[in-house]
Amino acid sequence: MTPRDRKILKAYTKAGARIEIKGRVKLKDRTDLALFYTPGVGVASTYLAKHPEAAREMSVKRNSVAIISDGSAVLGLGNIGPYGALPVMEGKALIFKEFAGIDAWPIVLDTQDPDRIIETVLAIAPSFGGINLEDIKSPQCFYVEQRIREELDIPVMHDDQHGTAIVVLAGLINAAKVVKKDMKKLRVVISGAGAAGTAVAKLFAASGIKDIIVLDRQGAIYAGRPRLVGHKKELAKLNLFRIKGSLEEVIKGTDVFIGVSGKGLVTKTMVESMNKRAIVFALANPDPEILPSEAKAAGAAVIATGGSDFPNQINNALVFPGIFRGALDKGVKKITEETKLRAAKALAALVLRPTASKIVPGIFDKRVVPAVARAVR
Amino acid sequence: MTPRDRKILKAYTKAGARIEIKGRVKLKDRTDLALFYTPGVGVASTYLAKHPEAAREMSVKRNSVAIISDGSAVLGLGNIGPYGALPVMEGKALIFKEFAGIDAWPIVLDTQDPDRIIETVLAIAPSFGGINLEDIKSPQCFYVEQRIREELDIPVMHDDQHGTAIVVLAGLINAAKVVKKDMKKLRVVISGAGAAGTAVAKLFAASGIKDIIVLDRQGAIYAGRPRLVGHKKELAKLNLFRIKGSLEEVIKGTDVFIGVSGKGLVTKTMVESMNKRAIVFALANPDPEILPSEAKAAGAAVIATGGSDFPNQINNALVFPGIFRGALDKGVKKITEETKLRAAKALAALVLRPTASKIVPGIFDKRVVPAVARAVR
Repeated sequence: MTPRDRKILKAYTKAGARIEIKGRVKLKDRTDLALFYTPGVGVASTYLAKHPEAAREMSVKRNSVAIISDGSAVLGLGNIGPYGALPVMEGKALIFKEFAGIDAWPIVLDTQDPDRIIETVLAIAPSFGGINLEDIKSPQCFYVEQRIREELDIPVMHDDQHGTAIVVLAGLINAAKVVKKDMKKLRVVISGAGAAGTAVAKLFAASGIKDIIVLDRQGAIYAGRPRLVGHKKELAKLNLFRIKGSLEEVIKGTDVFIGVSGKGLVTKTMVESMNKRAIVFALANPDPEILPSEAKAAGAAVIATGGSDFPNQINNALVFPGIFRGALDKGVKKITEETKLRAAKALAALVLRPTASKIVPGIFDKRVVPAVARAVR
Repeated sequence: MTPRDRKILKAYTKAGARIEIKGRVKLKDRTDLALFYTPGVGVASTYLAKHPEAAREMSVKRNSVAIISDGSAVLGLGNIGPYGALPVMEGKALIFKEFAGIDAWPIVLDTQDPDRIIETVLAIAPSFGGINLEDIKSPQCFYVEQRIREELDIPVMHDDQHGTAIVVLAGLINAAKVVKKDMKKLRVVISGAGAAGTAVAKLFAASGIKDIIVLDRQGAIYAGRPRLVGHKKELAKLNLFRIKGSLEEVIKGTDVFIGVSGKGLVTKTMVESMNKRAIVFALANPDPEILPSEAKAAGAAVIATGGSDFPNQINNALVFPGIFRGALDKGVKKITEETKLRAAKALAALVLRPTASKIVPGIFDKRVVPAVARAVR
């Protein structure tokens, strides 16, 4: 363990937990107790039993989100189970509160069976105003999200998919302005066909981008590739000219590289083979597909990563607080493709004069949450 | 709706929710974010994946309780479902925090199937330091609690059973002092063989009381009564002389009546038929089995109810905050029979000179939670 690691663990242990519960009403005497507990609570219970929709006005359901993870795909750490996932979910709960005033509780699951995850979330849903799925591995995450979304009448979002896709699209909108290229004509390669890569590709397509090639570990995904299943069949349709090959082959002559795959997968030579004024988003966490300094030396014009050590941090925290803030405030039950496109545009528009080192707003920019929330209708 | 009801609903709507989440650490700049979210959180995640037991020191698991209900037996209101139950569970969360500093989150379930309840609680348990089951109907509650208790290594307590039993026993200890009768020789009838009645009877027996007759709607429960199932077979064993009959018949010549059944089931004549210096706990909520004024006129020496309108309120809130406070502080994994007996004695001992109108400490007595917590080992 490094001294830095030790210092971090010490800070976490000192905090004990990073969130806690706080009362919003006084409970100082028997009068308070009679109103906010028995017998007064019986009146609220009787009312909500008859009018369950009023839970949105007089209970925690009004402003709460469950952050659900099975710990099967945590950050860049992989399948580390519920206890490994807990600190991340608790950190998200902290961000939900500090940035958007949302009361989120972390719930990590002692199961990785997709049907048990679904059953569990459906069972606990009445207490919550929204469901944030998190760090659930691909391809299970698609099925899990779809089923829960269909069954519940509260907003459900797998953040690794849609939070990522929204902030990546926002960044790309501004990066295209910086390099003065037409969004719709961009040639795009996406390395990684998991939750993030799949959602990014789909949202890019929905935004009007025509030429999108997604690669998994076996190379480019194209219609007719043997043993393609589920979401990869969808991705294959985006590869209009059925281009095959490795990343090294496919990246040649493209305008945009989006990496949501793994450390060091991209070389300087690959970036050099891209079109002039290339855009490189190397988003693997904690270590990018290529270091910004190398990408720059290889000619990339705009570079972004997932970390805070370089300019242009592509961070979901720019998105999920605002999406749920908007959905809770307006009683929106589904986060649609249109909402995601509007949110990406709203986020991009907050950077009035995009530059190579400023394509997304800062995470502490107070305009971010309201702007994203307004995009939810 | 009465003007009082309208006033209560207005207060609940004004509050919105009665609890909220609060951050325990600063999140003011990129340094804070790098420590308490990415990339710092990766260090905590890696550590907890390898040392899950440390979740008790550096996550919400340290101080959190899930308050779980399926809404099948809420207060005196019956089976009113998850939304009906939500205000009660939220009120309990408020009490957990205000009285014992515990971070409890209400989780009401969209299922009343015992196996689905069990599966759900087991699945979400990693996030929590304890499980408070609440307002789940009998007899399912026994099976649900037993299974969850066996499977988990965190404290699990069905409060309707054990919280009630502890506070009732505490009250009886002091009531016996007031009427100067030997606890062990008391003749006891318990009206109601649901969650509360069953647990009260068992804890009374564990405390050394020998003569206990429990009645359900069909009258006294005795060994050999046709079609006795599950927990009622256990209760029948306490009825040593296999006494049969209705409450009216069975209550004659007893010292103690404990009612956890229904409004108005006890008449003045019945109380008059009890032994001299009778103890009457009419705990049905919101309306007792007999009004205190009538019980007194019929000769009862010590009277208690579940409400705050009369002296001697027998309220679970005297117990559950302290039980979980003690269990969380000491890492106690099971709430045992011995713990319950110790807690009842500790609670009773807080009333230095019991009188007919003071057999349990007040709910706002600051000594209550520490005293009950100390009883947990």
